[in-house]
Amino acid sequence: MSGRKTYTQIYYLMITVQEALSIILSQSRNFGSTTVSINDATGRVLAEDIYADRDYPPFHRAAMDGFALRSEDFLEKGIRRYTIIEDLFAGGTSTLQPKEGQCLRIMTGSATPAAYDAIIRIEDCQLEGQQVTFNVTALKKGQNIARQGEDAKAGALILTKGTRLFAPEVAALAVAGRSTVLVHQFPKIAVISTGDEVVPVDQDIKPHQIRDSNSYALASFLHQYGLEIACRKLVTDDKELLRRVIQDVLTYDLVIFSGGVSMGEADFVPAVLADCGVQPLLHKVKLKPGKPLWFGKLPAGGVVFGLPGNPMSCQVCYKIFIEPFLRKCFDLPEALKLHLPLLVPKKKNAKLNQYFPCVIEGKGLRPVVINGSGDITSTLRSHGLALHPLEKEDLSEGDLVEFIFW
Amino acid sequence: MSGRKTYTQIYYLMITVQEALSIILSQSRNFGSTTVSINDATGRVLAEDIYADRDYPPFHRAAMDGFALRSEDFLEKGIRRYTIIEDLFAGGTSTLQPKEGQCLRIMTGSATPAAYDAIIRIEDCQLEGQQVTFNVTALKKGQNIARQGEDAKAGALILTKGTRLFAPEVAALAVAGRSTVLVHQFPKIAVISTGDEVVPVDQDIKPHQIRDSNSYALASFLHQYGLEIACRKLVTDDKELLRRVIQDVLTYDLVIFSGGVSMGEADFVPAVLADCGVQPLLHKVKLKPGKPLWFGKLPAGGVVFGLPGNPMSCQVCYKIFIEPFLRKCFDLPEALKLHLPLLVPKKKNAKLNQYFPCVIEGKGLRPVVINGSGDITSTLRSHGLALHPLEKEDLSEGDLVEFIFW
Repeated sequence: MSGRKTYTQIYYLMITVQEALSIILSQSRNFGSTTVSINDATGRVLAEDIYADRDYPPFHRAAMDGFALRSEDFLEKGIRRYTIIEDLFAGGTSTLQPKEGQCLRIMTGSATPAAYDAIIRIEDCQLEGQQVTFNVTALKKGQNIARQGEDAKAGALILTKGTRLFAPEVAALAVAGRSTVLVHQFPKIAVISTGDEVVPVDQDIKPHQIRDSNSYALASFLHQYGLEIACRKLVTDDKELLRRVIQDVLTYDLVIFSGGVSMGEADFVPAVLADCGVQPLLHKVKLKPGKPLWFGKLPAGGVVFGLPGNPMSCQVCYKIFIEPFLRKCFDLPEALKLHLPLLVPKKKNAKLNQYFPCVIEGKGLRPVVINGSGDITSTLRSHGLALHPLEKEDLSEGDLVEFIFW
Repeated sequence: MSGRKTYTQIYYLMITVQEALSIILSQSRNFGSTTVSINDATGRVLAEDIYADRDYPPFHRAAMDGFALRSEDFLEKGIRRYTIIEDLFAGGTSTLQPKEGQCLRIMTGSATPAAYDAIIRIEDCQLEGQQVTFNVTALKKGQNIARQGEDAKAGALILTKGTRLFAPEVAALAVAGRSTVLVHQFPKIAVISTGDEVVPVDQDIKPHQIRDSNSYALASFLHQYGLEIACRKLVTDDKELLRRVIQDVLTYDLVIFSGGVSMGEADFVPAVLADCGVQPLLHKVKLKPGKPLWFGKLPAGGVVFGLPGNPMSCQVCYKIFIEPFLRKCFDLPEALKLHLPLLVPKKKNAKLNQYFPCVIEGKGLRPVVINGSGDITSTLRSHGLALHPLEKEDLSEGDLVEFIFW
């Protein structure tokens, strides 16, 4: 085992999370774009701006089922009893011009003909054959009619590049007649778990071994963005094996290691990466859990994250560094941060940015009990992570803290 | 068109959202379960309880890289300089028994041998060959060792039925050696858009027509739960066509209509459903937007939602009624509700439960400007819906309001 001890760790000064993020985000790059069907667009990120193809509403849209009339008949001439000259259903067109005291029976969603300028809803009428009497005394010109173009004019920007497409946005694409759409391409991703103690999930296990769970956590996180892992490996702490695996992924966009980046004698991921031409950009961050984070740049332009092997550290590092990196690459804004009151006080216990799993309970946040960064149960049933900032002392009940969802 | 006018609407008293929800949720049913690979488990809902297969940590896990010693040597005998007798890497086992003044070099994640009961981290030592001197004066028995079983004992319940599987939960499955898992089966879903004015997204459009966007919104919402639509149709306001489409989906678990449930003369979805043996359970709810909601039960046990055709109404009804129904069927708890302060006051403008799209901005909620329930732009770029409750008058700046994410 003497080979293991010759490795001289490349030390970097421990930097803050903010400094680390700024180094990481500076390496973001566009993965290109691709056209997908609107049916596959959910969760993707727009790579083009979307404009209204016509006015919205595209016509003076009836907003109620009822009767369209000329407001001057009602307001100036005081007419309350009208003759229905025509029925207009959504999708239909009218042919007759109304005269004084005449109205049109109209259904929600119809294009109100230009001759009419108000609609009285069906609930406010008394109907006898083709005669209708209105039980209301007030009427506003234009009432119950959504004016053509009042929501968006033809040519208006309705969705911008870098918008993630969920139900409301996908609906808007459909409204605008976009059956296909340009979205950001997915990066090519490798996830490599390391460690002599780590065995695959479906393999027999010895008492001193643990199962690879980090690659599953990472796959699951990446799945939230529709991302799949192109290369997934589990490697023992063997420099030569590690070197070979790294050689295979040198042209990838994103390579994520878990394990092997700490202070231990078998933590030679950074050294082997350096040997393979990966430029180290940072090692160790003032973050708990997640201090041993390593980050570097592949010769071909991709990036490598070396995450700690502890399950919770690995999950926190994904949320604090990898997800923001991906979002930047996709032109997405920062992930949503909430500011919620703590339901219980929390002691300061690390001179680092500490992230702790919490559940949202009623109007505030309740921290989940944690045993340590290896605790596999601590992140379960939590909604996300709250931040105890480096510069802040004890937190009191009611203090607003920053919170991100898993 | 006279056939259209003979339809006698089945009127129901308008009920509150809470009453409607209770009727809807009473029709929830289990869709069965199925076994999936852990690789496909993200987003699925557990249909079995998951227990720890062994203690976690499975051994006295070294939480730091450093040196394991016997605390009595340090505390009682006052020894500060130790001889390293062995190196222990994660995944390895030790063979030697320590004598007084001897220690073990140990890496994070290793199974600490029973003979040692404390670890001093590498940062606190001075190393000369096989001799190590500790620069610390204090030591706590058990320090830097995560005790076997301290996170979870073998047989402990770690995940319960009705838990949705995201990264932390999928990681826990892997930890527990579960390469496959029992999850709730998906329901068989039909989405039927109706309306003479509605044309498919990729078809030429006339000025008085609009495009089908609701089926895309619904598909996108359902996709959040991994659900796909088995039958998707666009039907004109033609009773006979509608009847045929309904006949085809009588055995489905969930049928969602959009359009045709309002007060209009062409709104005969409820009547045709009733003709086909669908039992109406409610029509019209004190909800804005979304008042015309219809809900009924299929002869085979499935349910039918009739949603208003307006895009925003349709989206709100999905979130307020269909998503809760699905969650109940999956044994999931209610979707997360936040309580956030309004950043601006909001006037009361409907004697109904009003949901209004908002963005989360800083520490509060900012309502998006809405032109009406047909406004296709109003839900865009909002994070979700806030509630102006029926019983509440004007809302003031700073009032905490209930908020759900899209």
